[in-house]
Amino acid sequence: MRPSGRAADQLRSIRLTRGFTRHAEGSVLVEFGDTRVLCTASVEERVPPWLRNSNRGWVTAEYGMLPRATGSRTDREAARGRQQGRTVEIQRLIGRALRAVVDLEALGERRVVIDCDVLQADGGTRTASITGGYVALADAVGTLMKAGKVRRNPLHGQVAAISVGIHQGTPVLDLDYAEDSEAETDMNVVMNDAGHFIEVQGTAEGHAFRRAELDGMLDLASDGIDRLITEQRAALES
Amino acid sequence: MRPSGRAADQLRSIRLTRGFTRHAEGSVLVEFGDTRVLCTASVEERVPPWLRNSNRGWVTAEYGMLPRATGSRTDREAARGRQQGRTVEIQRLIGRALRAVVDLEALGERRVVIDCDVLQADGGTRTASITGGYVALADAVGTLMKAGKVRRNPLHGQVAAISVGIHQGTPVLDLDYAEDSEAETDMNVVMNDAGHFIEVQGTAEGHAFRRAELDGMLDLASDGIDRLITEQRAALES
Amino acid sequence: MRPSGRAADQLRSIRLTRGFTRHAEGSVLVEFGDTRVLCTASVEERVPPWLRNSNRGWVTAEYGMLPRATGSRTDREAARGRQQGRTVEIQRLIGRALRAVVDLEALGERRVVIDCDVLQADGGTRTASITGGYVALADAVGTLMKAGKVRRNPLHGQVAAISVGIHQGTPVLDLDYAEDSEAETDMNVVMNDAGHFIEVQGTAEGHAFRRAELDGMLDLASDGIDRLITEQRAALES
Amino acid sequence: MRPSGRAADQLRSIRLTRGFTRHAEGSVLVEFGDTRVLCTASVEERVPPWLRNSNRGWVTAEYGMLPRATGSRTDREAARGRQQGRTVEIQRLIGRALRAVVDLEALGERRVVIDCDVLQADGGTRTASITGGYVALADAVGTLMKAGKVRRNPLHGQVAAISVGIHQGTPVLDLDYAEDSEAETDMNVVMNDAGHFIEVQGTAEGHAFRRAELDGMLDLASDGIDRLITEQRAALES
Amino acid sequence: MRPSGRAADQLRSIRLTRGFTRHAEGSVLVEFGDTRVLCTASVEERVPPWLRNSNRGWVTAEYGMLPRATGSRTDREAARGRQQGRTVEIQRLIGRALRAVVDLEALGERRVVIDCDVLQADGGTRTASITGGYVALADAVGTLMKAGKVRRNPLHGQVAAISVGIHQGTPVLDLDYAEDSEAETDMNVVMNDAGHFIEVQGTAEGHAFRRAELDGMLDLASDGIDRLITEQRAALES
Amino acid sequence: MRPSGRAADQLRSIRLTRGFTRHAEGSVLVEFGDTRVLCTASVEERVPPWLRNSNRGWVTAEYGMLPRATGSRTDREAARGRQQGRTVEIQRLIGRALRAVVDLEALGERRVVIDCDVLQADGGTRTASITGGYVALADAVGTLMKAGKVRRNPLHGQVAAISVGIHQGTPVLDLDYAEDSEAETDMNVVMNDAGHFIEVQGTAEGHAFRRAELDGMLDLASDGIDRLITEQRAALES
Repeated sequence: MRPSGRAADQLRSIRLTRGFTRHAEGSVLVEFGDTRVLCTASVEERVPPWLRNSNRGWVTAEYGMLPRATGSRTDREAARGRQQGRTVEIQRLIGRALRAVVDLEALGERRVVIDCDVLQADGGTRTASITGGYVALADAVGTLMKAGKVRRNPLHGQVAAISVGIHQGTPVLDLDYAEDSEAETDMNVVMNDAGHFIEVQGTAEGHAFRRAELDGMLDLASDGIDRLITEQRAALES
Repeated sequence: MRPSGRAADQLRSIRLTRGFTRHAEGSVLVEFGDTRVLCTASVEERVPPWLRNSNRGWVTAEYGMLPRATGSRTDREAARGRQQGRTVEIQRLIGRALRAVVDLEALGERRVVIDCDVLQADGGTRTASITGGYVALADAVGTLMKAGKVRRNPLHGQVAAISVGIHQGTPVLDLDYAEDSEAETDMNVVMNDAGHFIEVQGTAEGHAFRRAELDGMLDLASDGIDRLITEQRAALES
Repeated sequence: MRPSGRAADQLRSIRLTRGFTRHAEGSVLVEFGDTRVLCTASVEERVPPWLRNSNRGWVTAEYGMLPRATGSRTDREAARGRQQGRTVEIQRLIGRALRAVVDLEALGERRVVIDCDVLQADGGTRTASITGGYVALADAVGTLMKAGKVRRNPLHGQVAAISVGIHQGTPVLDLDYAEDSEAETDMNVVMNDAGHFIEVQGTAEGHAFRRAELDGMLDLASDGIDRLITEQRAALES
Repeated sequence: MRPSGRAADQLRSIRLTRGFTRHAEGSVLVEFGDTRVLCTASVEERVPPWLRNSNRGWVTAEYGMLPRATGSRTDREAARGRQQGRTVEIQRLIGRALRAVVDLEALGERRVVIDCDVLQADGGTRTASITGGYVALADAVGTLMKAGKVRRNPLHGQVAAISVGIHQGTPVLDLDYAEDSEAETDMNVVMNDAGHFIEVQGTAEGHAFRRAELDGMLDLASDGIDRLITEQRAALES
Repeated sequence: MRPSGRAADQLRSIRLTRGFTRHAEGSVLVEFGDTRVLCTASVEERVPPWLRNSNRGWVTAEYGMLPRATGSRTDREAARGRQQGRTVEIQRLIGRALRAVVDLEALGERRVVIDCDVLQADGGTRTASITGGYVALADAVGTLMKAGKVRRNPLHGQVAAISVGIHQGTPVLDLDYAEDSEAETDMNVVMNDAGHFIEVQGTAEGHAFRRAELDGMLDLASDGIDRLITEQRAALES
Repeated sequence: MRPSGRAADQLRSIRLTRGFTRHAEGSVLVEFGDTRVLCTASVEERVPPWLRNSNRGWVTAEYGMLPRATGSRTDREAARGRQQGRTVEIQRLIGRALRAVVDLEALGERRVVIDCDVLQADGGTRTASITGGYVALADAVGTLMKAGKVRRNPLHGQVAAISVGIHQGTPVLDLDYAEDSEAETDMNVVMNDAGHFIEVQGTAEGHAFRRAELDGMLDLASDGIDRLITEQRAALES
């Protein structure tokens, strides 16, 4: 029995609220149980220096946690004057994951920034960020298309992400904070709507994991992401 | 007629939602119209070095804006590696304002940090932060009292804040972003529940203001803060 | 009786020494009693990026304290790698105050930087900086006019500043360090030569202040600034 | 045919030179073909603050590239004043990988720092760092054991790492820089001498990868790491 | 004929004004012609961590230039967030030079910080800093002795410094800014009152210098420092 | 008898290995006994902003030490976020020394960066860096000449450097770390192949040094550099 009482292959309750704030071209509050992340997509009509005059655009992500999103207060990174290694890793992952479904030429010479700010953390903030960030990105792209700024849809697929782990020897899906703390292995999986892998990051926490355990986690992740893809589609169609 | 269509002495719709997130000892979403700030109060059982072994506590504030809280995206301060001058000024103001109603000896040797993070900005974020921050602080203090950690109530008053300005020669209350951009003078006023001043900060934007204009603004502010004090009390009693 | 033995409405001895150093377009040593600030005005034939090709100029200020300007040594900000919040607040205030009397179009696309460096501190360094900074600015503008670089005088007024406070229940003018430490309220007032307000910043230190106290402080300030305006004029005419 | 002309399952020539410099407790030059990384292990008789009085030690890693280790010169991170995101990610990975085979209690309250400095880069610097870093760590642990500072061997296993990828649809082992630039998928695998996984990090570069491709890469990696484990053992026994 | 019209072995007019500001234990304005540096000596009853419980004290120096001490404005180092290489070099030199005449054990476990802030620059600011810094240090030490905090005089000698150079093939003493810009070689020499060398730093600017030129510069420097030592003594006795 | 057992005028064993790494235009491992520094010269087809459109090039140097190049581990400067004062001083010295033999107009509008990274330190790393850096620079210049990118040889001389000191009253040449720690005076001398001085930096460590001691050190240095110039020539001709 896992700490949350959920079945091994059971997701937490998922919610995707579009238009959560009003300024951004895309603004989505994504909730995986008690984990709540505000994902905004901002369109900027300029690109990083290395892409100037390339006719290609860019999609990047930034990640942050409000200081008291967590059980005990975390120092504000702006006050400390630098982002932690963990933050940098996560935002690089989110950016790579989202770029994997974007045709940067079709996007045109502009930049979309996906800001993922964790209002409340209960495990799985990076995978929630990717899953919600995709919906915010889709809304921003919709704005560009409606305005006639892009000719063809720069999104050639959907992307979502989920965490899996080994809890007391059994693979489990979508770990909350309490489960993550006890897990022997923690893996984040990013996949597209064709069921193929975009990123796989697994780390042994307690002891090294066997190939069979890896296979079990990948099976669970694949199944969970399939359901997240459906949730995203439902949110975007509503 | 002011841009928002409100009467000169009319506040925007005010909302104070307690328990907006679940980890913090106090967590309040404060809304002044479209301005939305999440204020959390975190209790830490330690004090800054200069207060160690003083039997006194400390209350401090930090302020941040999500990058896309604003009409166009602002750089993330954590990514730039430093807080802007405006941020530093605002968080110092919030801290001073809240400390004005706290008996730091009664608080005991602990620190309360008020984090004010702007989810959506439409003018008046610093005064909203003070007004909502007080409620979060009161909740945190309530937790300490319930737990028997403080003997007497460290709060000896209430504090709230509002902006006032001169719009086309007339003093107006509670400026939104559009009004603030057009105002000739911008003033932030912080008062306690006895109707006395804790902080007054007025800046001429267009031309210098006369004593009569200053008096008019102070009258409006005093009246507005009175209503905010009532709103705070209602929220805390609900 | 106030600590300095001065009457409630008595300024300290004021001195404005022009040409204190020889490189700057304006260089003024301002003394308010034992407070001594070197204000230099430097003309640069370039503007910040956001003003390029705007036909408008810019006036900005920077503030610093020599490490041993104070009773005990303060860390050098250059060595610590960042300016303190207090420094940032003060230099923003000085810049706003001086810009309030400058026609930035008449100045032309150039920048004047007012550097205010405190050689010796005894309270009121920010108001001394504004008062002396104006004289340095006027000298720099004079240089531009003599050189035929500006067609009409970009200065459309004079600006000066003074601190006021409540000491043992009585409003007093121009607090020195000892008085400032004991004051219940501390207020900085910036006005122009028409007797109108450019900035008002009042902070309760001990207990909140009443409207009547505020009024008393504003009266004193208004009177004191009137005398400072006269001192500036005398210095500029000598 | 892969760019290097190697068979799909062929490692580059591997060299592990112990005692490359003389000050460190462990100092190993690891070469994977033209990739050359100097790994030093430094024993320090102190631990990070959070481990004080815990009777547990710590193993951590830092990673750097000499500015001209690469084809065109990279800015020196010390001169820029911050480590890049990529650097932070890599050094966190190396540290986690090495800690996975260390009994931190047996190590005692001391810290071992593994510095991995790339003298020449040709792909696979992070996996070479882990592979060589293990040998440096083993030498440092050997020093501690000889000196009687640890009672039982804190190393409970061996760890090595290799990169795998998909090149023109085929899984290939140990990519050099030219191959890495062309690869559709890039995966780094860290395993122990029992053949179990410590870390798996796979990223789609061109298009998303299928489960069968993932399986193929894992098979190659497992086989390659087996050979690296043998190389490490040979180096340590020589 | 040198640009300043001075004879090759002629110093500029030297002035040492003690008690220039009132807070510091030593405060000296040193003038070498138009070069003006404010040197303050601050006594602190603590030492850097590596000297704790060593019964030894420390003397260190910090150097800064007011932004408009120079012909065109220099960026403020505090605003840029780092000290320039030149600044760091100079303050290290001043610190070493002064420590050369201090018995750190006799000083006791305390620190003296010599702050050298250039109010106006016209060449030779580092040598003026050493020469004036010594007098400030002597005043601070005098304070300690009068207060009975040190038993025996920690100063076992005097130290002064001067610049020399080669101008149109001829060695010249005490270069001002205009001369320094034209000089083929620039050398700073620090000596004690016994006429021995504490530091010699010579740099070829135009072409490499010959041994005979070096000898000529050292002769001039030795003679000039002898006169500075006399000036210091006179100032301290006045 | 000096600690190393060498004669007073005896250099350590010198080795200059060209082509130590393969990417840089010049790559030299320089060894002075146990001191080993990797010097690379990188040609970049751009110049610093202040030289744009000047038809002049630039030569600059950066210096670093691997964390465990030394007896006990030194913090990595990239991790600390700033270069130490010592590092800045050394790299400025190396840059000045190398520029002294370069005709920057003949070099053309490009930049050569000399990176000197200490793999193993045993005293004299800055003088080894200059001596080896020259050979790397010569190789980079050779590449430019072969490619027809420069018309005439920008190198108009050779430059090398050595340390000298006073050990137990006697001048000695080329101090290793143990000798440097005991030396009463430490001097670094940079000369060209004509036997003239480019830089002389002498510092009294124990007591001030006499003119005769200075003369003795300069004689030794001159003789030692003569031999280093020969070693450089031999390396470049091999």
